Amino acid sequence: MGLIVQKYGGTSVADVDRIRHVADRVIQTVEKGDQLVVILSAMAGVTDKLLDLASQAAEMPDKRELDVLLATGEQTTAALLAITLQARGYPARSLLGFQAAVLTDHDFGNARILEVGTQRILDLLDKKNIVVVAGFQGCDLQGNITTLGRGGSDTSAVAIAAALGADMCEIYTDVDGIYTADPNVCSRARKLSRVTYDEMLNMASLGAKVLQIRSVAFAKKFNVPVHVRSSFSEEEGTMVVNNDEAGMESLVVSAVTHDKNEARITLKKVPDQPGIAAKIFSPIAAAGIVVDMIIQNTREEGDTDLTFTVPKSDYARALKIEEKIAAEIGAEQVYGDRDIAKISVVGMGMKNHSGVAATMFNTLARENINIHMITTSEIRISCVVDEKYAELAVRVLHTAFGLDTEEERD
Amino acid sequence: MGLIVQKYGGTSVADVDRIRHVADRVIQTVEKGDQLVVILSAMAGVTDKLLDLASQAAEMPDKRELDVLLATGEQTTAALLAITLQARGYPARSLLGFQAAVLTDHDFGNARILEVGTQRILDLLDKKNIVVVAGFQGCDLQGNITTLGRGGSDTSAVAIAAALGADMCEIYTDVDGIYTADPNVCSRARKLSRVTYDEMLNMASLGAKVLQIRSVAFAKKFNVPVHVRSSFSEEEGTMVVNNDEAGMESLVVSAVTHDKNEARITLKKVPDQPGIAAKIFSPIAAAGIVVDMIIQNTREEGDTDLTFTVPKSDYARALKIEEKIAAEIGAEQVYGDRDIAKISVVGMGMKNHSGVAATMFNTLARENINIHMITTSEIRISCVVDEKYAELAVRVLHTAFGLDTEEERD
Repeated sequence: MGLIVQKYGGTSVADVDRIRHVADRVIQTVEKGDQLVVILSAMAGVTDKLLDLASQAAEMPDKRELDVLLATGEQTTAALLAITLQARGYPARSLLGFQAAVLTDHDFGNARILEVGTQRILDLLDKKNIVVVAGFQGCDLQGNITTLGRGGSDTSAVAIAAALGADMCEIYTDVDGIYTADPNVCSRARKLSRVTYDEMLNMASLGAKVLQIRSVAFAKKFNVPVHVRSSFSEEEGTMVVNNDEAGMESLVVSAVTHDKNEARITLKKVPDQPGIAAKIFSPIAAAGIVVDMIIQNTREEGDTDLTFTVPKSDYARALKIEEKIAAEIGAEQVYGDRDIAKISVVGMGMKNHSGVAATMFNTLARENINIHMITTSEIRISCVVDEKYAELAVRVLHTAFGLDTEEERD
Repeated sequence: MGLIVQKYGGTSVADVDRIRHVADRVIQTVEKGDQLVVILSAMAGVTDKLLDLASQAAEMPDKRELDVLLATGEQTTAALLAITLQARGYPARSLLGFQAAVLTDHDFGNARILEVGTQRILDLLDKKNIVVVAGFQGCDLQGNITTLGRGGSDTSAVAIAAALGADMCEIYTDVDGIYTADPNVCSRARKLSRVTYDEMLNMASLGAKVLQIRSVAFAKKFNVPVHVRSSFSEEEGTMVVNNDEAGMESLVVSAVTHDKNEARITLKKVPDQPGIAAKIFSPIAAAGIVVDMIIQNTREEGDTDLTFTVPKSDYARALKIEEKIAAEIGAEQVYGDRDIAKISVVGMGMKNHSGVAATMFNTLARENINIHMITTSEIRISCVVDEKYAELAVRVLHTAFGLDTEEERD
């Protein structure tokens, strides 16, 4: 007998029919003799509807109150699944964030889990209940309702699995696993049977579509085995495991990812003085804009060109801020480019194999794809290229690193 | 400076526009310098939608889980009002049932309030907050979410007003007060400026459309002054006050009510033996059917005719049960009538004035309206008549007891 945590995403609980289907899976699991805790998202689209209601009420809705509103989405699905299971003769109890003792800080809208109390869940499991927990929500020390940010139910699931010492955390979603590239872009992409936490953390967009990145960091920290799989098929998905378990067989490159959600801003001829970077980035941070890549090329003349990327949605705001700053610090010019894409190759094996960067640059060069920016981490190399080349770049790199399947997908 | 509790019903918070209108009223009140606690219902229609979802999931939804589901309705409006108030610069905090410490028993779906903790509300008021409490919901000692039954937000409001020792509990609804009769039936009905708790308790249908009856019992017990008024106009509504305050001026009859929601069942020639009533009514009670009026006429032959009324929706079920029982106890016949109406006259003044019954019977007789059943309480006389005469009966009694306005309503 094991203790399993299953998490079902928004498309898996989109209506009462789908919830019935989730109940089938849940019953299948308990019939095998496993104890089961189920974490649910809100019905697909509901969170957006609630956000729309809030934005009708106020341009900038109060964050504490927005969380109270958003938490209703998961409360609804949790109650409906418990109702469905009860009606089929399986004792089930829903728990909201505060009832499941998912204790968070009070950063409303993006709260971090501090602790998960397990007593109530364990008591209910002992009494043969299926425990259904509303995902995405918790409460702070004062008993205020908090939410964990978009995709937060993944983190709820992993955190609860960690606290319970669960044998497995299954993430049911509408895709059947993690792929070597976006199958919509790369017809020869194939599903990975295993991927490491670190690889997931570096796959950014590709991984984030499937699993909230914070949940992966959580899983890594507490070594929670995660199985990402489809709620619409019986097929095995992708296991997300720790680096040791990846073992010998790990590929040099596991995946090629692309991200079109960033834009690039360059400050030309910035005086090369101490403290200048702080002047450039502090106002951006204060505006709540997240900077991803930063590159600085020092020139011989004692000044420097500084380039960085921001989310496309913040591009206009960031550009305006930097135009003001450039004038203050005496930079020559500010310009930017929205039409870029970030292409990354990711793989644990990269650590022990040289030449990955060379292969990447050569492959892109062969297709006349110009590289604007480069950053690297221990297990990732990312290049910024013109957006129009994104798909081509993914495909040629996917082939170059030996990731192609024999057969094209349909 | 006073402490006011305001409750807004479902039509008053039906959408974000209406909630904005509620915010106007709330701001008006605090601008006068009053401290304010606002209790909200769910948006009109939402509770029915949630019930429909639940019934898609299960024929008989688990009661605990149904309450978790239903509680989302008031959570939504409470958050939206708080968001609206915050955006307009008025500090506001929403509290759910468990946060406001509305402690109930665990009779899910129809829970009774045991206690309201006031600490958190008072703390928030001290810090100049408008406190917005989700109505209709509470929690039991184990922290399970409970709901108070249809119209339960009225009871939330009165209970919280009682616990806080509020100066006034204002119930905002879509009618502008309590009338001497249903204005749809009686064009000369007029709004009462005052009515006593006991009168409200005896006005059943007429009162219940405006105020959950349990909330009136609560208001009476804790002597909470209640002001029923429209959220769509500035006009004064009806004050619900204790019997002493009604004073000299109280009318002999304050209102004429009618109720078409009951049906009548008669058992003919029931053997007149001890314990026979228990045999007749126990299975009805066990089936969860509420019996209202009971009349028994003992006949000379040592048997008796027994007539009682049940809600129309339970009529078929009750008739079936009684047919079985009649056979068991040797009653001659069972028959019933769905097409009845209960007409009541209600008034504190009745206690000190004889002749009300005579006036009632004579008035009905003059119109050739046959009376099938009669029951009386200290301040109410009710007659069952054929349903088709209901409106006529209301109008002639309304005139007979001097309740008509000078002018017809439009």
